[in-house]
Order: sequence, then C-alpha cells, then structure tokens
Amino acid sequence: MGPTGDANDHGLLTAAETSLLVDQYELAMAASYHRQGMNEPAAFELFARRLPANRDWLLVAGLGPTLRLVTEMRFGARELEYLGTIGFRAEFLDYLADFRFAGDIDALPEGTLAFANEPLVRVTAPRIEAQLLETLLLNQVNFQTMLASKTARILLAAGEGEPDRGGGVVDFSPRRDHGTDAAMKAARSAAIAGAAGTSNVAAAMRYGLAPVGTMAHSYVMSFASEEEAFRKFMRDTPENAVMLVDTYDTLEGVRRAISASRATGVRLKGVRLDSGDILELSRKTRALLDEAGMSETTIVASGDLEEDQISRCVAAGAPVDLWGVGTDLGTSRDSPTVNGVYKLVADRGADGHWRGVIKQSAAKATMPGRKQVFRRYDEGGVMAGDVVALAEEECEGRPLLVPAMRGGDVVHTESLAEMRERAANELRSLPRELTLPGERDRTAYRVEWSEHLRDAAEEATAVAGVGAASGARG
Amino acid sequence: MGPTGDANDHGLLTAAETSLLVDQYELAMAASYHRQGMNEPAAFELFARRLPANRDWLLVAGLGPTLRLVTEMRFGARELEYLGTIGFRAEFLDYLADFRFAGDIDALPEGTLAFANEPLVRVTAPRIEAQLLETLLLNQVNFQTMLASKTARILLAAGEGEPDRGGGVVDFSPRRDHGTDAAMKAARSAAIAGAAGTSNVAAAMRYGLAPVGTMAHSYVMSFASEEEAFRKFMRDTPENAVMLVDTYDTLEGVRRAISASRATGVRLKGVRLDSGDILELSRKTRALLDEAGMSETTIVASGDLEEDQISRCVAAGAPVDLWGVGTDLGTSRDSPTVNGVYKLVADRGADGHWRGVIKQSAAKATMPGRKQVFRRYDEGGVMAGDVVALAEEECEGRPLLVPAMRGGDVVHTESLAEMRERAANELRSLPRELTLPGERDRTAYRVEWSEHLRDAAEEATAVAGVGAASGARG
Repeated sequence: MGPTGDANDHGLLTAAETSLLVDQYELAMAASYHRQGMNEPAAFELFARRLPANRDWLLVAGLGPTLRLVTEMRFGARELEYLGTIGFRAEFLDYLADFRFAGDIDALPEGTLAFANEPLVRVTAPRIEAQLLETLLLNQVNFQTMLASKTARILLAAGEGEPDRGGGVVDFSPRRDHGTDAAMKAARSAAIAGAAGTSNVAAAMRYGLAPVGTMAHSYVMSFASEEEAFRKFMRDTPENAVMLVDTYDTLEGVRRAISASRATGVRLKGVRLDSGDILELSRKTRALLDEAGMSETTIVASGDLEEDQISRCVAAGAPVDLWGVGTDLGTSRDSPTVNGVYKLVADRGADGHWRGVIKQSAAKATMPGRKQVFRRYDEGGVMAGDVVALAEEECEGRPLLVPAMRGGDVVHTESLAEMRERAANELRSLPRELTLPGERDRTAYRVEWSEHLRDAAEEATAVAGVGAASGARG
Repeated sequence: MGPTGDANDHGLLTAAETSLLVDQYELAMAASYHRQGMNEPAAFELFARRLPANRDWLLVAGLGPTLRLVTEMRFGARELEYLGTIGFRAEFLDYLADFRFAGDIDALPEGTLAFANEPLVRVTAPRIEAQLLETLLLNQVNFQTMLASKTARILLAAGEGEPDRGGGVVDFSPRRDHGTDAAMKAARSAAIAGAAGTSNVAAAMRYGLAPVGTMAHSYVMSFASEEEAFRKFMRDTPENAVMLVDTYDTLEGVRRAISASRATGVRLKGVRLDSGDILELSRKTRALLDEAGMSETTIVASGDLEEDQISRCVAAGAPVDLWGVGTDLGTSRDSPTVNGVYKLVADRGADGHWRGVIKQSAAKATMPGRKQVFRRYDEGGVMAGDVVALAEEECEGRPLLVPAMRGGDVVHTESLAEMRERAANELRSLPRELTLPGERDRTAYRVEWSEHLRDAAEEATAVAGVGAASGARG
C-alpha cells in the first residue's frame, strides 16, 4: 500500500506504525520546536481534572502495553513519505527517521486507585519526544483505566462491596468493544481488576488469561432437539460441559441438561442463564440441580447484565457463581469516558533550572511542577487520604508513582498476578462508603495539595498573571 | 513470543491474527460441528433488536475494513499451538489451518440509514465458517455504526437539521477513543458521516482523509509570551496558521493572533476557541477579526463539545466555521452502545431446502429466514417507510442489501466519496422530525414486516412450539 488512502483498508496498525497515531498538532508543534532548537527537557503529566460521572475513584490500567508501544514507535519510510506530502519539511523528517523515545516515565502501577488531579503518568524527556507521546498515552491509558474501573465496580457489586467475595465476573465484551485493540485491552483491564477470565481467545493467548465460553443459541437451534444439542456438546466438549439453557424454556432446559448429563455420563459443569428474571430462574435452577445431586454444577448468568442488577440479585441471594458481562464491561455504559489530559507542568530553562508551568484557561487550570502522590492509611489499613505534592517533597504516606522507564528503557515490569493483587488490596483498603453501588458520600475521600505545591502554584500564578497582561510567561 | 501470555504485550493484532478475536464459544461450537460433519450452508444476520437510547436511526459503517479482515483471517502456527493447549483436538486444528472464509456476504452499503430489526449484514456460508465470523463482525460493525451515527447527529446539529449546511465537524477523538483500532475507525466512520477531517494522522494517511490540527496550550506556554508563540508558529507553519487563543485570555489572544499575523505577514488562517462561552466568544472574536479586515479567517471551536451545545450555539447564530469534537464523537457518550447481534436465521437441511430458524427466548425472538429491506420514498424524496421481507420476495421500494462478498471474494468496493455521498443523501431524505436534536416523535418512521415474513414466522413458531414441548425443532 502506498501512502495514499484506501477507503477499505483494514485499519490495523503495527506497534511501529502507532508513531502516526498522533494528533496532527503534535507533529506541527514538534516541527516548530525542531526548527527553533527548542528541545530542552520538559515534563508532562497525564491526569483527570475531575472524576467521571458515577465514579468515586479510578482503577489505573494500561501502563504495560503502553510502555511497550512507546519503545517500538518508529517513523518508517512510508510514514515519512506521507508526512512529506502534507507539508512537513525534510529536516524534520530526518529527525523523525531517527526518533526513538529515550526519556523517563514515572507512573502509577496498574491496579492502583487514583483520584482527580493525581498524575497517572509523568513523562520527562526532551520537549519534542514528550510532546509526541501525548496522543498515544491518552488513547491507551484513558480507556483501559475506564474499563478496569468499571470491572472493579462490577466485582464489588457481585461481592456485596468486597472484591473477592461472591461470584466471579467474566469479560464477555468483544462484540461490543470498540475494535480489535479495545477487545484485547478490555480483557486485560478486566483481568487486572479481578475478572476470572474472558471469552476473547486472542486476549487469553496474549495475556495468559483464562478463556471462557459455552455455546450460543444458534448451536442449540442447529439440532433437532435441545437435549440432542446438549448430548452432542457434552460428547464433543466433555471438559467444558456448560449448557446454555434458555433457548426455548429455561427450566425445561435445565431438566434437559441434567438428563443429557445422565445419558452421556459427562459431568454437567455448569448451566448458563442468558435471559429472563435471573434471581428467580437462578433459584429454581439451583433447586433442580441440587435435587439431581448436581450441587457442584455452577450457574453462569449473562445477557446485558449491569452492576446495579447484579448487586440487587446478589443482595437477594441469587445463587449465581459467575457473571458474564459484555456491553457494560466493555463500554462502561453508565460512565463512558475518562477525561484524562496530558499537560506540560514544567520545563528546564536555559539556566538549567526546572520551572513550574501553569495554565490559566477558565475552569482548566493546571497545577505547576512535577508531582508525586502520597497515600495515608488508618490503623485498620483503610485509605485515609492522599496528598499531591511536588516530586521532590517528602510527605507522610506511601509514594504512589514509581519509575517505569529510564532513558527509553522499561524499568518497571510486573506480572498480571502482581497487578491483580495490587488491585485487590487497593479495593479492600477503600473506605466502605466508596465500595457500594448507588448513592455515595462523595466527600468520603480527601485529596489535598501539599503546602509546597500550593505555594508553587501561587508563585506561578503571580508570574503568569503578569504574563497574561503582556502575553508573557515567567 | 510463544503462545503463553505476556502481561505487557502491546496487544496489537495483525489482520491474520484477528482469527482468534473470537469468543471462545464460537470455536467450541465450530469444533463440535466439525466432529459431527455439520457444515451445511447456514445464514446468519447481524441486526439490532432495538435502536439505542437517544437514537432514531443508525448510519451504517464498518463494512469495507471488515470485509478486508475477513479475507485475511488465518489460523497461523502460533494460534493453532495455543488452541491445542486449551483442549482443541488435532482434527479440528487441521481444519482451521486451512481455513479461508469462502462464503457469501450481503450487506447495507456504508452510509445507509438503518432501523431496528433490519439486517446490516447477512452471512451465507457453511455453518462453521459463518459461525467463526460472529465476534469479528460484531466487534467491527457495532461501534463503527455507532460512531458514524453520532457524527451524523453532530453534523445535523451544526447544520440546523441539514447535514451539509452550517459549520463543518472534525474528528478530534483519538485521545478518548478506545485504543488504536478505535481511533482509526472513528476517523473513518466520522468521514463517512460527513466529517471534514481528522486530527488522527495515521487515519488520514490510511483512509485518505484531511489531517487537521493547530497547536496545544503547551506550545503557547513554551514561549516567553503568547504573541511570540504565535509568531514562531506562523513562521514555521505558514500554510496552517490556526492559533489557539485561550491559553491566557481568549479575546486578548485573538488580538495577539491578529498582531502576530501583521508582524509576520502570514495570513491568519484561523483561530481556535477551546474553552469558555463559545457563543459569546465566537461573536466577539468574529467582530475583532472583521474589524482587522480578516473576514476570511475562520473560527474553530473545540473543548468537550456535545451536539446539544453545538445545536444551541448554531441556533443562536454563533459564527463558528468548524467544530472539533473529541470525546462525544469518539465515545458516543449520550448513547454509548449499539447492541447489534448475530443470529442464525436459516439453514439448509439434508433435503437441500432452506428452513427458517426461529428463537423464542422471552423478549429475544428472532424472525426466521434470510431477509431483504425495501425502502419507499414519497414524491418529495423523503423516506416513507421500510418493509423487512424475505430475501426472495419482490416488494415495493428500493432493496437495500447488496452483494458484498461472493465465494470469499469482495464484490462490493466503494470509495469514501461514494459512501459520504450516500450518507448525505440518506440524511437529506430523513423525515424532518428525525433530524432535529432533543425530543422527537419516535413513531415518525414505520418499519414493517412483509406478510410473507409474518407467515413464515408464524409457521416457524408453530413448529417450534411443538419443539419447545419436546425440546425438538422442526
């Protein structure tokens, strides 16, 4: 394919090609900085100014794949040829041809809880390099954090406010995810939050997750009778004999699954309820299974499930072992955006000193300086409050951002098990008011600015105030 | 990388690797069909049972890239090795090793308006092949249709109910899109709906779209004064001198942009307003520009814009030439899911005859048989109603589904210009009540089943009714 467009291209990018998954203005600014030799170190931070609607916290996800992408970003010959056709000059293209990100990244490890105005990622690098990461970092971290947060809420709903109690949750979202990359990252983000597996086989393979699946209605309908379908599936897939029982009549389907299990001698591993009143049907199903001596057979529920519905079912004692959630997990329908932004917070002047940078647009102020977040806990291990401070400060509490990349090399690599364990610990340490669905006391968790940071902001505001009058910045 | 998981893999798939972007149950069912030699032709249809919340129609998108992916799907050595480790048997893996989709696909061309229960895509193929496409088709078509529909609504809002009137709309969504594939397809879907360009350079390159961009606040803040920033940018990017004017004080910023243009001799192509009261600021900005003799200078608005806000601004006469929309375009926040499903509707029995297949789960009934949609128009060219009929019927009106793939070969290829033109024509032919934001008369457009289709459904229900009692299907 040449650099000109093909309306029917599959649209998939390689890791190297994500170099052009960049807003045009990043390149325009970078080209201007390059012409002017403005490539001194600068620091940018990725954070959300406000928590999303219906959210009291974020569960951070996406760092690992994002770091990998950053190390693999390259401007190849086709990309450079295209950039030449849209007006970028040869000297800048030469710079891009050699581009490798060689800066530093600090970040919240995946599975950390975060709040508004807390940096999730901080990039310190020559200005052009830091600028060129903006779109990719936001494109990856925003939605993965959204999906991990949503999955954590579903797990809390399934466990009556405790992440590791109650039924498990499985990602059934690929059909509602936004394309291939979203499906891969939805499964991964859900796993970090504590999901028990995914229906997405590609994600199970890449990320070492448990692949989960049963059968569709079309399978049942492809045989002369429901019971014949169950028998055939049991004989062909004896190790995964989970029967979808609601194609015709749910409780009749349960009886036929029991009967097929007896006829084939294959242990009925589970039944899946995909429609109807899950509370009532799960109770009656449990009774039928227990009567048949199949108390080990699990009940899987699915079918456009949402956290509130799961929470109500669990509170009423629905004997569901596994919740398969698709649309709401994959699109976070009740809160479908995380508005993370990526802002310049400091740069190093000709004098070699770092200077905090402040933005003053109405309602979009940015606190200056490179930051760290310190988290305190009470005696019971419950989170007691965060302080956002300057990176060089020493505050009470546990510092949350860790070195993730140094000089372009990844220095923070964790297993999925480590991320999951962190997420579980974080969710267990949440104040109880923030773990329950429905109305919450949004003042329950305090995030404060450190005194030094407030001083720095005042100073920068005073300087920028002068600047605003003359258009100058200090 | 071996078939075992790497928690920090970048997660990007090649087109061939999308073979495993499949729900595990598709493979489990396919393996069972394969063991039983059940691979007779079957027909599946992709449709939405209900329109999404806040939507009166869907603008279909995603077909072209999806067809390309389908032709390129392969089960490679690593995928087969992995499937072996999770229990799939050698004979089935041998079948997959040779897998090429060789079936037929009929579909609504991109840019067509669709309603509930109208098939967007129909797949006719040996049962296993048709089954294995389910997840990929839904993963691609659902969200692309959602984003094209949302963009069309934004364009209608910007044009007071007429798609090609009023200001243009540009995709600024990559930072809020769900990963790399979503960003590529968001730009493409927006373009089909009529967007004037995208900030996403990779998508502009792949799909031949107009790349659009200006500068960020961080650029302005990187210079000693706002006016210096503008001058530098004008000198370095004279062909694209659009200045972001709200870093400090918006109207002061406009004055400085004018002044920088005079100082540099570079034509001020545009100014961008990214915060504040867009209506008031755009009016005052227009006045300043006109006073300065810069009536050709355009005004771009951005900053978390939503269709209702745009509609209100346009109704009040805001002189905005281009609306840059990010979050709401890329996530369709007011209606963040399209619940398309993919259902078996017919199969060919041992007798060589096609049989309609019906599903009877409560509230999830499926109409049997392969279908076509016929659309009628009134004398003025306004859409007057659709009839969903059996594919072999001849009904009044224009048939909407066209052959898209035959024997695995793509037979329907359009340019983006053709898709855009179709979308514009479709939107112009919508009943006026369905083009305006806010409250709508949801009965304004009638979609009916043909008499033959209703007869076929009754017949299939009667047969399935017997079947439900015995678990048998006719």
